[in-house]
Amino acid sequence: MENLLRYAEKLFDEVEIAVYRSREVSANVELNEISMTGVRSGAVTVIRGIKDKRLGLAIVDSDEENRVKEAIEQAAKMARLNSPDEKWVSLPKSGKYREKPKPNYELKEASPDVLVEMLVRAIKLTREMDKHATVAGGGGEISWNESHIMNSHGIDVSQEGGLSYMLLEFVGRKGNVVTPGITEFEARKDLNLNVEEAVERGLKKVSWAYNVKSSKNEEVPLIFSPEAIAFLFYGALFPAFSGERLVKETTPLAGKVGEKIASEVITLYDDPFHELSLLHAVSDDEGVPLRRNTIIENGTFKGFVWDNYWAKVYGTESTGNGQRDLRSGSIRIGLNTVVIEKGKRSLEDMIAEIERGYLVDGVQGAHSSNPDNGNFAVTANPAFLIENGEVVGSSVFLIAGNVYELLKQASEVSREQTVMPVMYTVVSPHIKFENVKIAGK
Amino acid sequence: MENLLRYAEKLFDEVEIAVYRSREVSANVELNEISMTGVRSGAVTVIRGIKDKRLGLAIVDSDEENRVKEAIEQAAKMARLNSPDEKWVSLPKSGKYREKPKPNYELKEASPDVLVEMLVRAIKLTREMDKHATVAGGGGEISWNESHIMNSHGIDVSQEGGLSYMLLEFVGRKGNVVTPGITEFEARKDLNLNVEEAVERGLKKVSWAYNVKSSKNEEVPLIFSPEAIAFLFYGALFPAFSGERLVKETTPLAGKVGEKIASEVITLYDDPFHELSLLHAVSDDEGVPLRRNTIIENGTFKGFVWDNYWAKVYGTESTGNGQRDLRSGSIRIGLNTVVIEKGKRSLEDMIAEIERGYLVDGVQGAHSSNPDNGNFAVTANPAFLIENGEVVGSSVFLIAGNVYELLKQASEVSREQTVMPVMYTVVSPHIKFENVKIAGK
Repeated sequence: MENLLRYAEKLFDEVEIAVYRSREVSANVELNEISMTGVRSGAVTVIRGIKDKRLGLAIVDSDEENRVKEAIEQAAKMARLNSPDEKWVSLPKSGKYREKPKPNYELKEASPDVLVEMLVRAIKLTREMDKHATVAGGGGEISWNESHIMNSHGIDVSQEGGLSYMLLEFVGRKGNVVTPGITEFEARKDLNLNVEEAVERGLKKVSWAYNVKSSKNEEVPLIFSPEAIAFLFYGALFPAFSGERLVKETTPLAGKVGEKIASEVITLYDDPFHELSLLHAVSDDEGVPLRRNTIIENGTFKGFVWDNYWAKVYGTESTGNGQRDLRSGSIRIGLNTVVIEKGKRSLEDMIAEIERGYLVDGVQGAHSSNPDNGNFAVTANPAFLIENGEVVGSSVFLIAGNVYELLKQASEVSREQTVMPVMYTVVSPHIKFENVKIAGK
Repeated sequence: MENLLRYAEKLFDEVEIAVYRSREVSANVELNEISMTGVRSGAVTVIRGIKDKRLGLAIVDSDEENRVKEAIEQAAKMARLNSPDEKWVSLPKSGKYREKPKPNYELKEASPDVLVEMLVRAIKLTREMDKHATVAGGGGEISWNESHIMNSHGIDVSQEGGLSYMLLEFVGRKGNVVTPGITEFEARKDLNLNVEEAVERGLKKVSWAYNVKSSKNEEVPLIFSPEAIAFLFYGALFPAFSGERLVKETTPLAGKVGEKIASEVITLYDDPFHELSLLHAVSDDEGVPLRRNTIIENGTFKGFVWDNYWAKVYGTESTGNGQRDLRSGSIRIGLNTVVIEKGKRSLEDMIAEIERGYLVDGVQGAHSSNPDNGNFAVTANPAFLIENGEVVGSSVFLIAGNVYELLKQASEVSREQTVMPVMYTVVSPHIKFENVKIAGK
C-alpha cells in the first residue's frame, strides 16, 4: 500500500487511500426455526484524491494492488473532469492516537455454528418458559472489521476488531390475543451474548402484553426504554449535532452553544472508548484520532461534531466524526458511540412510584421525524401501562411532539444502561419524561 | 459444481445449488459534479437442502469449491436442528426453456469511463439548455449478472446478461422558485442510453415547474406517468398478485379470478420476454422456466403468480415467479417484468383534451400503501397542472384512495411505454384516471 500511496501522490496534490476488510457470519430465525446461515467476507478500497481543488473519488471492492492502482487512475481522470471545489482546504494531518484496544480474536474466525447454537437455545428456552410464545424472527451476526487509512500528509493507521449481536423478536398468542412483537437485543465485543437474560427480558414483556389495555388521550409520565430512545433520537435529535448542518443552517441548535436545551438530568456525549462501546477504533475514517466529545452536559448544549471537510469550511478542526459510507465512498458526519449518562436508581424503583403512566418499549415511524426542527410523530408500540407502581398490561398510542420539549420534561435516568447496535451505536439508560401528551389509538 | 451437487445429494433428500456472479460499475453525480466511480464484483452461492422435510439453507459469498462444500455441510447441520415443515412437497423438476437471448457482451467488461462520459455530457447539455437548471443528483450503473441453478431433480440452467441505466435528478432555480426534483430514467440491455432525450425530457418538466400553482380540493382527471404508476402499484397493487397471499388470505383478490377489477383499458401481464424487458433469463431462481403470465386482461383478473413452494402448498404449479433474496437466501414470489399494455394515442393528444387536470409525474410515500386492501395515501410531486389542453405549471397535492377504485377510473393508456428499472422492472404507458379526488396542500 505504501507504493500505491507514492504512485497516487504523483497524480494528486493530496490523496487518501482507505482499505476496509470485513468478514461476517450470520444466522436468521423465522417462526421458531433457523431459516438461514451465511458467511460473507470482502475488501473495499476507497481512493480520494484532490488536484487543484478538484475531487476524484473511486471505489473498488478489492485490496489487490493492480485493482487499487486502476481505481487511483480512475479517480485521477474524474478529478480532471470536475470543477474545483473552492471551499476545499485540505485532508487532515496526522495526530496522536490512544493505545489500541485488544480485540477478541475468537470473533475473527467464528463459525455460524456459534450463532445457530445460541438461537436454538433461545428458541428452546422460550418454548419451555412460555408455551404460548414463539421466537417469531430475529437472528445473530458476528462481524470482524479491519481498516487501514493512509494519506499523503502522514496519516497511516490500522485497526481491527469485531462484535457479536443477537436480536430476538418474541410474539405471544393466548386465546384471541396476539401480542405485538417484543424485540430484545444483545451486543458485545466477544462471543458471550447472554441468551438466557434476553429471553427472560423478552418473555416478561410478552407476559405483560397478554393483557391488552385500551389507550386514551391523556397527559402522563412516560419511561422510554433504551431502544425507544435510540430510534427516536436517531431521527429527531442526533442529526442536529452535525457541524455540516450548522454551516448549512439546517439545525435548530445553531447559536445554542452554552444554552440549556434539556433538563439537568440529561448528559450526552460521543464516547468511542466507553466500556459498553462496540468499537475498537482509535481513528475515524479520515484517520483523525477518536476522542470523547461532550455534546449535552447537565442539559446544556456544549457543541457540534465535525468531519474534516466541514470543520475546515467553518474554520475549526475535526472532532473525529468523519464516517465513510462504503456505497458512495463519501465521508459524512456521524456519531461514534452516543452515550447518555446513567442515574442512581433502578428502572424498578422508577416504575414503583408511578401512579399512572407508561413504559414505552419501542417506537414506530421515527424515521419520518424532522431533524431540522425536532418534530416527531411516532406510535408507541409496545407500550406497557403502569398503574400504582406496577405494569398491568400493554397498549398502543401516538406521541406527537418536539424532541427539545421532551428533553426538558426529562426527570430521571435509570441506573442500568444498555447498548443498542442500531444504526449508530447508542448506550442509553431508561429515561422518564413528565407530563407527556399522548393520543389514544 | 456437478461434483458438489453429487456430494450434497448424499446429505439431503433433495438439494438445490444456486450460484450468482455479478459485476457492476457505477458513477454518481452530485450538484453538477461526478462524486464517485466504483467497480464491484462478486459471487454468492446459496444451498437449499431438505432432509425429512427439514430445511437447511446456507449462503456463502464465493463460488470456490471448498467454501461451497463448507456451506453444504452448514446447511446439512441446520436441517438436523430444525423441525419438519409438514407443508413441504418438493423442489421443482426440470422443464422446457425458451431459447436463450443473446446478451450484449460490451456490458460485461464496461469501464466506469463510459458512465462518466455520459454523465458529464448530461451535465454540460443541461447547463447549455437552461442556465437555471442543475443536475442535482443521480448516477449510472452498468451491471452484468450470471447465474447457475442446479437441483437434484435434474434442473441445470445457466444464464447471463447485463443492463445499463442512468438516473438524472434535475432542479431549477429561478428567482425565488426552487423546483421540486425532476427525475428521469433511462435503462437498456446495451450501452446506448439516450442522454440527450433524458435531458430534454427533464428540462421540459423543469420549465413547467418554474411556474408554481397552488392546489385545492377538487375532483379532476389525472394522468399518471410510468414512474408514478410503478411506485404506486409496487406498494398498493403488485403484492396482491402473490399466490402466497392467496394461501395466507392477505390479498383482496382472493375469489376474484374472472371478475372485473379494473376498467377495460387495463391489461397487465408479467412478461420477461417483452421487447423492453431488462432480463436475459429463461428460468426463475428455482430453475422453473420463465413465461408470460396474464394477470389482468381488459380489466378482468386472470390469476395469481407462484413460486414452487406456495404453488405446491396450494396444489398448483409455479408460474416461474420464484425470486431469491440474496441477503436471506430465501425465495419470494416476485414479478419478472410487469407490462401494462399500451394504447393508441400519444400522451400529447391525451393532454390536449383535458380542460382542467394534472399530469402526476412522481408520487411520494407509496411505500406505506397497504396491499392487504389496496389503500394508499401519497403526495403527488412533481405534478403538472393542465388547463385547456396545455401544461401551465407545477403543483403538489395529496391523493388518498384505493388502488382498485382507481383502476376502475382508468379511461385511457398512452401509445408510449417506458421501462422503469425500479424495484420490479415495470413497463408502463401513461394512464389517465377520471374524477380523482385530490386534496390541496
